[in-house]
Amino acid sequence: MRAIVITIGDELLNGTTVDTNSAFLGRELGNIGIQLFEKLAISDKKEHIIDSLERYVGKADLILFTGGLGPTKDDITKQTLCEYFGGTLVRDASVLAGIEKAFARRGLTMTDRNSDQALVPDVCTVVPNAYGTAPGMLFEQNGSLVFSMPGVPFEMRSMFAEQVIPILQQRLELPVIVNRHLMTSGIGESWLADRIADLEEALPPHITLAYLPSPGVVKLRLTGRGTDSRKLQEEVDAQVQLFAERLGKHVYGYDEETLMASIGRRLMALNKTLSLAESCTGGNIGKLITSIPGSSAYFMGSVVSYDNSVKEKVLGVSRATLDTHGAVSEETVQEMLSGILRITGTHYAIAVSGVAGPGGGTEDKPVGTVYIGVAGPSVTEIKRYTFGQKRDTNIEYSSMYALHQLRSMLDADLEKQGISA
Amino acid sequence: MRAIVITIGDELLNGTTVDTNSAFLGRELGNIGIQLFEKLAISDKKEHIIDSLERYVGKADLILFTGGLGPTKDDITKQTLCEYFGGTLVRDASVLAGIEKAFARRGLTMTDRNSDQALVPDVCTVVPNAYGTAPGMLFEQNGSLVFSMPGVPFEMRSMFAEQVIPILQQRLELPVIVNRHLMTSGIGESWLADRIADLEEALPPHITLAYLPSPGVVKLRLTGRGTDSRKLQEEVDAQVQLFAERLGKHVYGYDEETLMASIGRRLMALNKTLSLAESCTGGNIGKLITSIPGSSAYFMGSVVSYDNSVKEKVLGVSRATLDTHGAVSEETVQEMLSGILRITGTHYAIAVSGVAGPGGGTEDKPVGTVYIGVAGPSVTEIKRYTFGQKRDTNIEYSSMYALHQLRSMLDADLEKQGISA
Repeated sequence: MRAIVITIGDELLNGTTVDTNSAFLGRELGNIGIQLFEKLAISDKKEHIIDSLERYVGKADLILFTGGLGPTKDDITKQTLCEYFGGTLVRDASVLAGIEKAFARRGLTMTDRNSDQALVPDVCTVVPNAYGTAPGMLFEQNGSLVFSMPGVPFEMRSMFAEQVIPILQQRLELPVIVNRHLMTSGIGESWLADRIADLEEALPPHITLAYLPSPGVVKLRLTGRGTDSRKLQEEVDAQVQLFAERLGKHVYGYDEETLMASIGRRLMALNKTLSLAESCTGGNIGKLITSIPGSSAYFMGSVVSYDNSVKEKVLGVSRATLDTHGAVSEETVQEMLSGILRITGTHYAIAVSGVAGPGGGTEDKPVGTVYIGVAGPSVTEIKRYTFGQKRDTNIEYSSMYALHQLRSMLDADLEKQGISA
Repeated sequence: MRAIVITIGDELLNGTTVDTNSAFLGRELGNIGIQLFEKLAISDKKEHIIDSLERYVGKADLILFTGGLGPTKDDITKQTLCEYFGGTLVRDASVLAGIEKAFARRGLTMTDRNSDQALVPDVCTVVPNAYGTAPGMLFEQNGSLVFSMPGVPFEMRSMFAEQVIPILQQRLELPVIVNRHLMTSGIGESWLADRIADLEEALPPHITLAYLPSPGVVKLRLTGRGTDSRKLQEEVDAQVQLFAERLGKHVYGYDEETLMASIGRRLMALNKTLSLAESCTGGNIGKLITSIPGSSAYFMGSVVSYDNSVKEKVLGVSRATLDTHGAVSEETVQEMLSGILRITGTHYAIAVSGVAGPGGGTEDKPVGTVYIGVAGPSVTEIKRYTFGQKRDTNIEYSSMYALHQLRSMLDADLEKQGISA
């Protein structure tokens, strides 16, 4: 099985746009058992599209084009594909009806350019576009399935998931693939690898493990390949169970749940509320917490006390504490916690104060020094971290480790009360 | 001139990593007058690397490999390149010294695997890696310059900027390229295009205009190509002047300055301070403001009043206002502004309240309805916006339009006081 993704567009070559479509397709193809062989990005010129077809048609089993469609591109991709596969453009009634409906819904008037999007090669199968006006197309030649999809990410993603995958599953002999994820927080990849080395070693050859690290979170992916779907699911689930038992409290969730979503799930199970007192993170923890729809059920709000005057006046941190211990200290974070709990009356609170950099570092507290405190109904925990030199990564790590500390406390409280989240 | 970027790594094909290196290279090449012809992503297998070399060596003038280097990859790329170009691996004293220095600095012990990174093909020119242990390499064959660079973005970026570009400028006949940017906020791309259509039309053929839109901000890039650097600079500057005059107050800055940085520059010129009262943006405006190093000079802090109780208790929004007009209203935003100014004593404040979605919409105030208010020393402006259906883009647009409104007020105040920022 040889699969190729070809992205079309000058904006991909001159770097105006970072291509996320091909990474999406790589992941989605992997999920149905197709390993991408290579990816090519080309300009939206006719000769370049022809050249790529000559290079791959008859040699690859699957060719996925994205981009180069749409009214402003003069439909160069569609015309070129039509010509290459020896067809003629004809008006497709169902595509036209879809375009007319889309325009009516938005109360807009169609131009000729818009209705010309209903012209499709008579040698292709139309692949409907549920979220846009440029139809997808499927051509077949010399053993190659050639799909052309729009480049707009959300149009392409839904077309691929809803239309293309079912065709691939019907037309190609694909293995059964089962993916499961374990989500861990607050520990490093190498620590994790040491902890589960023997389990990884003992995996049967048809089940593989991948480490997918990001700041504060490492995702473990177990991938099983086989032919019997039910049996494989059971085998992978059994392995997930083994790894989860070994890693215990380091696992906060499964199957790509974010740390923010897992915190929301826990707070709702406990029926408790949260507030924040941020400083060096500037609002980023609140931004992360509120990225979850429905977070207003448990998140009350926050004070970003960037300047010491706000720490004093709003949160009630004492001048003496700031003078004696400094804004970046356990004592200040303790008083930030007391202050935000007093103001908002929530059950839990996070407070963070640190030196994000590039300025503000001292010998005792260099750039990257951050105090993170979490207060709950029964206990308060404040830790000192030393992250790195870069402002943006210091903010990101501070935020994710604060969420990790909160998650750990919520887990302890859930366990104490015998509640499962 | 035919230039190709080849990225090596299974993580790029299976979608674990989104490739940002090739977009960086596309932009940087464009800046020195080289248009990227195509980009290819391949696996880190020997036969795949050989196949790509056979495809391009002698046909492309410039081939840039990234990735596939480093001790954990078994240096497959280095060995393959060495073999393809007919060389032998030899220990390079300067590379070894660099690796030893890097290990000593971090207090780590070198393994054989690390010192083997000093093995380089005797048929290449070593390209030093200032930020890592895997050296870059330059090979030449049949008119092709072939560079191999590490895949770690910050190592690759500095190697390319500091080492590779000077070689390209020396070895290739490159045109002189001058890029200048105009940064605009608060207006759409099509409005902009209409407004400057005649100026764009009148551009000389060697100067081109590109629109680079992102939420709330449209960057205009003028690119001049020529041979005489000074003359071209003057010509492009003159065009920048024409476009800037036409667009007037819509231009907030030049040459890729962010809206956040431009606000900091203005507040510092006015010697004034800022605070925020956020609601639906959850902390994101504070996060954006504090992404700028040194923002503590003018940003005092914020209250994220996600729940109405925080709007009442902390910001002092009256219960009557919330009951009568709702949290998403001009009246509430007005009281949020008064509250945050009273608490923090800053000269300027932003307040935002809206329905980010997916829940919470009503017939009068559907999802995407957002009130954005800005208060300054002399005036308060509150506007109602209707953004879209998606939670994350509503938050992003609300934040950027809030910054745009603040920027406009700062410009008016700077003008009134005859200060140039």
